[in-house]
Amino acid sequence: MKKLINHVDTVLAESLDGFAVAHADIVALGAEREFVRRLHTKPGKVAIISGGGSGHEPLHAGFVGHGMLDAACPGQVFTSPTPNQMLAAAESVDTGAGVLFIVKNYSGDMMNFQMAAEMLDRDNATVIVNDDVAVENSTYTTGRRGVAGTLVVEKIVGGAAERGDSLGDLKALGDAVNKATASMGVALTSCTVPAAGKPTFQIGPDEMEMGVGIHGEPGRRRVKLASADEIAAELTGAILKDLSLKRGQEAILLVNGFGGTPALELYVMVNAALKVLNGAGVKVVRHLTGSYVTSLEMAGCSITVTAVDADMLLLWDAPVHTAALRWGM
Amino acid sequence: MKKLINHVDTVLAESLDGFAVAHADIVALGAEREFVRRLHTKPGKVAIISGGGSGHEPLHAGFVGHGMLDAACPGQVFTSPTPNQMLAAAESVDTGAGVLFIVKNYSGDMMNFQMAAEMLDRDNATVIVNDDVAVENSTYTTGRRGVAGTLVVEKIVGGAAERGDSLGDLKALGDAVNKATASMGVALTSCTVPAAGKPTFQIGPDEMEMGVGIHGEPGRRRVKLASADEIAAELTGAILKDLSLKRGQEAILLVNGFGGTPALELYVMVNAALKVLNGAGVKVVRHLTGSYVTSLEMAGCSITVTAVDADMLLLWDAPVHTAALRWGM
Repeated sequence: MKKLINHVDTVLAESLDGFAVAHADIVALGAEREFVRRLHTKPGKVAIISGGGSGHEPLHAGFVGHGMLDAACPGQVFTSPTPNQMLAAAESVDTGAGVLFIVKNYSGDMMNFQMAAEMLDRDNATVIVNDDVAVENSTYTTGRRGVAGTLVVEKIVGGAAERGDSLGDLKALGDAVNKATASMGVALTSCTVPAAGKPTFQIGPDEMEMGVGIHGEPGRRRVKLASADEIAAELTGAILKDLSLKRGQEAILLVNGFGGTPALELYVMVNAALKVLNGAGVKVVRHLTGSYVTSLEMAGCSITVTAVDADMLLLWDAPVHTAALRWGM
Repeated sequence: MKKLINHVDTVLAESLDGFAVAHADIVALGAEREFVRRLHTKPGKVAIISGGGSGHEPLHAGFVGHGMLDAACPGQVFTSPTPNQMLAAAESVDTGAGVLFIVKNYSGDMMNFQMAAEMLDRDNATVIVNDDVAVENSTYTTGRRGVAGTLVVEKIVGGAAERGDSLGDLKALGDAVNKATASMGVALTSCTVPAAGKPTFQIGPDEMEMGVGIHGEPGRRRVKLASADEIAAELTGAILKDLSLKRGQEAILLVNGFGGTPALELYVMVNAALKVLNGAGVKVVRHLTGSYVTSLEMAGCSITVTAVDADMLLLWDAPVHTAALRWGM
């Protein structure tokens, strides 16, 4: 295993410490590293809290800040954070307007966030993200997995919280964005979880995993390598089938690298995905391209499409100031 | 070779097309893809132009926009752009105040940019970046290589150009920033140039290349894997030796991933580098962490330190709006 670490037991703590210092103008770390929180909370604003296993950086801690998350709870690599982390985060950032949890649909996260929600003596609601159209049920999931579309949900809901929307409205908006979002990914290589010390899965030099999950979980099928155009056609085709968009529908396109994919290739995929979307009459009005929801150093990418209405687009464009996404301020 | 491409001969063109569409609010592409230019030039402002081989994305095209570059000329992967590309870029973005070329010190780039500078019938000057302290002379270089410090030069000089500094002042500032900047990197794996189809170099499962270049060129020596703390101590130690900083000196710290390194590990390296810098009394006043000057999918990272004075810091903080760096607007 080749990694820039000191020890598998300390990698998360040291990484969080480095993150907190590097972004000390935006975030603060909980005393026991239970959460990364926004440095300055905004009184009267609903607190948006997410979290999940580490190894998907910049998701979620990289999205903490003005216009997005108030706190993120990092679990160990590919392992859910605990209810205690979520409760500590809620106590730290709720200013009295309540808490909205944004949770990716994995069994461990669902169980722990639900437990936290039940224990929390504050108004709260939960938005579940399950944008991955590749498979129903999976290694760690009942139902569809939550993948890169989580970023879109967190950005749009975060923007709405910043303008003062109520907890009920934010819950409804989050559910609506999730419903309007679909993703699918492909892996060319595996990732290696530090504590495991070996690749999560084996894959041949001429193979790829279509529909892979963000923990290297199996997708739809293992196939021979194909061209960027063929891959984009399959991923985008599955997304379009799921969303059933009308011609002329406005959409955000997120081409997301899994960690080991050069930007050079991600933009080839943007070009390839656009051919399919243009052909279907979908009007891509905003782009985001980069490695935002990763699987450590896995090579591959996912495509996410969110069909947006005018308000969602306004909220996507709203100012954001986080470690990984920043515009308008 | 596992890559998200259609064909090795079209990867650059398709990637540039995807980039141009995804960032159509910031950039435009030359008619024959000779350059990526800023969408709106600013009359009376010195034009800042850089470029070099592709495969280092987001460098340089990702730094085109307000507050940084006016144009970037992309060569084929790890291959210098041609003088004609640089001349076309200069014709396109010079508004009469002259052109400053920022060139990484590689023989091919140096020759071609020098030829363009001589042919160009406009005021021009050139800043050469050679921040890599690992080795004198290298596979493609006479003297020291230009690596991730190029980003810092481009940001600070770009900020100064935006405020209206003259060509002469910008040349002097660029030279000063380059002199105040030192970098060194380490590779854990090789990259694969699409047209070559196989890894640039062989490296054992327990080895790393200390002082590697951003094309996978040999560094100081091939050694056994070490811990993040040990690696950071050697890289940062070499940088400090080169810069001879006084205690209390303010500095920017850039921990740069080479493309295949998870953010989780980069922040471990931030934490590790800070121990060394704090120990030496260097005051890190700004951080940038991420994969900005890459070698395709190579795993590893570089550390860059720039000693800054008050004006350089002001210019680092100045608003920037590019595909890869954006703040203050």
